[in-house]
Amino acid sequence: MLDLGGEALVLTHDMMAEGVHFLPGQDPADVAWKLVACNLSDLASKGAQPLGVLLGYMFGQDDARFVAGLGEALAHFGVPLLGGDTISGTGPQALGLTAIGRATCRPVPSRGGAQPGDALWITGAVGGAMLGCEALKAGKADAEATRAYRRPEALVAEGQALAPYVSAMMDVSDGVLLDAARMARASGVTFALDSAAVPIATHETRRGDALRWGDDYQLLFTAPADAALPIACHKIGEALPQGSSPLLLDGLPLSEADGLGYEHR
Amino acid sequence: MLDLGGEALVLTHDMMAEGVHFLPGQDPADVAWKLVACNLSDLASKGAQPLGVLLGYMFGQDDARFVAGLGEALAHFGVPLLGGDTISGTGPQALGLTAIGRATCRPVPSRGGAQPGDALWITGAVGGAMLGCEALKAGKADAEATRAYRRPEALVAEGQALAPYVSAMMDVSDGVLLDAARMARASGVTFALDSAAVPIATHETRRGDALRWGDDYQLLFTAPADAALPIACHKIGEALPQGSSPLLLDGLPLSEADGLGYEHR
Repeated sequence: MLDLGGEALVLTHDMMAEGVHFLPGQDPADVAWKLVACNLSDLASKGAQPLGVLLGYMFGQDDARFVAGLGEALAHFGVPLLGGDTISGTGPQALGLTAIGRATCRPVPSRGGAQPGDALWITGAVGGAMLGCEALKAGKADAEATRAYRRPEALVAEGQALAPYVSAMMDVSDGVLLDAARMARASGVTFALDSAAVPIATHETRRGDALRWGDDYQLLFTAPADAALPIACHKIGEALPQGSSPLLLDGLPLSEADGLGYEHR
Repeated sequence: MLDLGGEALVLTHDMMAEGVHFLPGQDPADVAWKLVACNLSDLASKGAQPLGVLLGYMFGQDDARFVAGLGEALAHFGVPLLGGDTISGTGPQALGLTAIGRATCRPVPSRGGAQPGDALWITGAVGGAMLGCEALKAGKADAEATRAYRRPEALVAEGQALAPYVSAMMDVSDGVLLDAARMARASGVTFALDSAAVPIATHETRRGDALRWGDDYQLLFTAPADAALPIACHKIGEALPQGSSPLLLDGLPLSEADGLGYEHR
């Protein structure tokens, strides 16, 4: 965050590496889309209006496909490419994107503002990216079946609409349970989370997996329980005074060591 | 460039890859310094005041040394780390840095503004980084002998001081001759360059090499020949109406195909 000329700038930078964040054989156009979406989702969670992106691009297998996907993503999200750098590498491809946004609401939402008594909400279903990734790995050519994983949305408009109402907000990139635990720690509260209340985009038998999968980029936020939210959201829990664990999942105390989601360095 | 709240933001992003932009055995602290310096030099060439940086960091051989060098560079240049991302990779280390600055002068200098009749100037000597790199490759442990290559300066104050006086400006990262040719093309002029007037930090026998080596991060700029510059600079040539080649080096027409400097993708 940076204050400049009466505005608050919100800046995010995400990197992706071949073999770690995307598969060597994955369509570079999808990789480009995801790189844009995950950064814009960070801006969305701050209620920020995206102003542009800078790309750090290491040349890869099919640069034209990457550029095509980048163009589609930038057009879809209405964000200009402001600059960046291109380099040659000698190993797996590494990519970086910086997104710059303008805060539309002060204070700018963070993950540290949840108060005991607040309700915990999520904007929509999780598990769709999980199904999409599984279909992709299974070699399914059905573009729609894999779309949620390949071409995630960044909830930019939703983030701006919600920002004035929330006490804390973040995007779910590593799983609802793990990200909720992180928000709880940052806020100094414990979340009592009702697992059945979390909307899922998969069969009931996969609920546990869906709660531990990231990549759906839903927004997770807290607000007073009676808040008149501007968009339809799903109430999935409440904030309690800080207990011995950051999460109570259906009453069961859980912490990050319990395999709550996607842990990466 | 981005206009926001009455300010012009200047944004730069440079990437570096192990085995391409730095050697696998190079001190990570020096790599960190250079990553910061080369981005801040970009801001300097726009006359911008640095506001902060975002780091994209792939874990490497000695992360503690990298962090130490990063801290030294940020303290030296007085710039805060605003955020970024850390990832694991499976191959050679890739690094990215985004620098954000505030323009101190409008219009913001670009490489495209040189006018016929302008003089061409450089802030200081080139060739020091070349000597430093050669000493490093020769295994010399003398920190001072390699310093110009390992710990380049970014001429941030000089760039801000010069910005109101220049018609075009850029930093010399790929060699004076090559970068001058680029400025000439961008401006639609030809530069008549007096090779003997370029200050060099090496023996006269190496002048030709020094003019083709980057990494010194001097500022190259044009201004009216009688400009009362606020700092001491070296007049090395003049801008002529565009001819058939971008450069006349001591009267000899040269273009990018003639091996003017460090060409990278």
